[in-house]
Amino acid sequence: MKPLPDALVGQPVSAVDTPSLVIDLDAMERNLARMVAFAKSRKLRLRPHAKMHKSSTLARLQMQAGAVGVCVQKTAEAEVMAAGGVNDIYISNEVIAPAKLQRVVALAQTLARRGGRLAMAVDSLEGVQRLALATRAATGADGLIDVFVELDVGHGRCGVTAPETAVLLAQEIARHPALRFAGLQAYHGRAQHFRGVAERRAAIAAAVALVQRTITLMDQASLKVELVTGAGSGSFALEAGSGVYGELQAGSFMFMDADYARNEADPSQPQFEHALFLKTQVMSVCDDHAVCDAGHKSHAIDSGLPRVHPLSGTPDLEFFNGGDEHGILRGLTPDTRLPAIGDTLWLIPGHCDPTVNLHDVLIGVRGGLETGVVEQLIGVDARGALS
Amino acid sequence: MKPLPDALVGQPVSAVDTPSLVIDLDAMERNLARMVAFAKSRKLRLRPHAKMHKSSTLARLQMQAGAVGVCVQKTAEAEVMAAGGVNDIYISNEVIAPAKLQRVVALAQTLARRGGRLAMAVDSLEGVQRLALATRAATGADGLIDVFVELDVGHGRCGVTAPETAVLLAQEIARHPALRFAGLQAYHGRAQHFRGVAERRAAIAAAVALVQRTITLMDQASLKVELVTGAGSGSFALEAGSGVYGELQAGSFMFMDADYARNEADPSQPQFEHALFLKTQVMSVCDDHAVCDAGHKSHAIDSGLPRVHPLSGTPDLEFFNGGDEHGILRGLTPDTRLPAIGDTLWLIPGHCDPTVNLHDVLIGVRGGLETGVVEQLIGVDARGALS
Repeated sequence: MKPLPDALVGQPVSAVDTPSLVIDLDAMERNLARMVAFAKSRKLRLRPHAKMHKSSTLARLQMQAGAVGVCVQKTAEAEVMAAGGVNDIYISNEVIAPAKLQRVVALAQTLARRGGRLAMAVDSLEGVQRLALATRAATGADGLIDVFVELDVGHGRCGVTAPETAVLLAQEIARHPALRFAGLQAYHGRAQHFRGVAERRAAIAAAVALVQRTITLMDQASLKVELVTGAGSGSFALEAGSGVYGELQAGSFMFMDADYARNEADPSQPQFEHALFLKTQVMSVCDDHAVCDAGHKSHAIDSGLPRVHPLSGTPDLEFFNGGDEHGILRGLTPDTRLPAIGDTLWLIPGHCDPTVNLHDVLIGVRGGLETGVVEQLIGVDARGALS
Repeated sequence: MKPLPDALVGQPVSAVDTPSLVIDLDAMERNLARMVAFAKSRKLRLRPHAKMHKSSTLARLQMQAGAVGVCVQKTAEAEVMAAGGVNDIYISNEVIAPAKLQRVVALAQTLARRGGRLAMAVDSLEGVQRLALATRAATGADGLIDVFVELDVGHGRCGVTAPETAVLLAQEIARHPALRFAGLQAYHGRAQHFRGVAERRAAIAAAVALVQRTITLMDQASLKVELVTGAGSGSFALEAGSGVYGELQAGSFMFMDADYARNEADPSQPQFEHALFLKTQVMSVCDDHAVCDAGHKSHAIDSGLPRVHPLSGTPDLEFFNGGDEHGILRGLTPDTRLPAIGDTLWLIPGHCDPTVNLHDVLIGVRGGLETGVVEQLIGVDARGALS
């Protein structure tokens, strides 16, 4: 991580250079409080996904607020979270390379010594056996690693589709003393972005049905499914109401992005505010467009381009792709006044996770984007932790 | 920049963890030699764009091979290049924020002390005046900064469209003793990716015509256009043959990506080899697809998804978007054999610039991707240098 420009703390938000990722700390904390209250009211564990914020500072904040730990997708992310003081980490993804599995085992031992815990997902016999092999040289490794069997509940990516296969994997896990069968990973990623509540309801109902069939088969094989973990920011109230999920993995609710905001609101789940913004400055203006200094090296484009925040003064501006280093701003109507050179604007990123992953620091502002003050520089210490 | 895993040097390429960006050093060096020879044969200056590789190590390599310096897009990139020992740097982009312009001036003084030079582009009176204001407090600043007037030669982003405006800007530059009017920035970014040679030819012909009209007007105003700088990896032979361009800014030729490879080859320019590869590993397999560990946090998607390299053994595999951390591999034919869990594959990124910007290190391999050895770890020291 690059050194943080800590001279900025205490400065007004107007002093923040561009392009920069700014967190509205008040909005973020309200989002977190709403999610914690929701999980508490449903008696569910909350294990937010740290792949979103990539920051051990924010992971600790979430745990102080009541989260049981964090999820990550990568071994390297787990290592960064552990280095940042997080003791309960779940790699909700498959790990296959022997060198990475050695790191997983070493990390599990480190966390165990600190009174914490490491968990991992598997979806193949090969995966279980490779993990078990990596634990062989570990001393005192009995029950060292919690292992979740991943079901493909509709995403069409990793995970097993047949409950029978899940049972075989759980049985294989049970054969290895260093591994403990901890339950089912059942996350439906695609469903998070289904626009209509009805579509999301149908998708999660199908996921829940598969989970229930799997639990029944596991019961018949005398395998106890202690925990079903999953759910994202688009659907978590549905998983929460299913009676089978015990843990919510949502991550994006903390920051909210333009893509999630396009979902039809589900009245059964709390609503979240945008808390992540990209500050940008106009550097060039001509007859029909203005150019700002935020291109797709500063924001992700996988879920659409950023939206121009109404705070920018000209809410009828649309952001167009200007390449790696530039954004193009055009008026939505012929009489829209284009911004002037030097004007700053606020963008709402299309997708928070890969946008955060482009930045080394999040600039935490207290008191709003117009008159707020920089309170905290939050290192994105797991940025680029790919392995 | 994160610490580099230097224990890898000397290891076989098979030891490289995934997902990782690997440079085929032999191919990269051949690409560089071809471009240097081309520029030399046309008596043109070569100033490769460092926004592509973001590495002061590679910038120095390019200068040792004959480049006069590098281009960058950002003030922070210029600072990283200077810190890495590069003394001739051109910010081929507008800089507007007063705080950044102070940094530009400080950097120009540093480079001048080292016998080097800083240049910058402008496309507005406001931009010239802000830059001039920033030089006011600088002592001994006469002729400190080379300033290029940017023409919009067809990209439709920054730059002035009327030659008359370019003359006004050059006159304004001439009024400020710290600034030196250095010539014209005339880069047609879109033309680089026009697929047909005929389209690219027409686009660059139009660019050249605008440059010529501007030079004529400048002459009439007694303003000497010492240098016209521009051209990218898709079209540089056309600018080179125009008789008006004196400097080539191409960057991608060093690495070549899947998008540039889709261009119809222009027989008048040297051909380049793919030298940048993303190594990935299969982590999950089911009936109709395999999942690898490279998602769009490890490769850019703005110019299409990565292609599967034939070296991977199964050339009839297609890469589909699997989200931030996963890639989906499917067979192109019903009887394609899917790879197995643990297999590694090589991907050719769709667009090299924003792909490199996701990584902290490029792993330089000598002797090819099959049996080569890691020779060098190349820090991407300007990764995330956004400001």
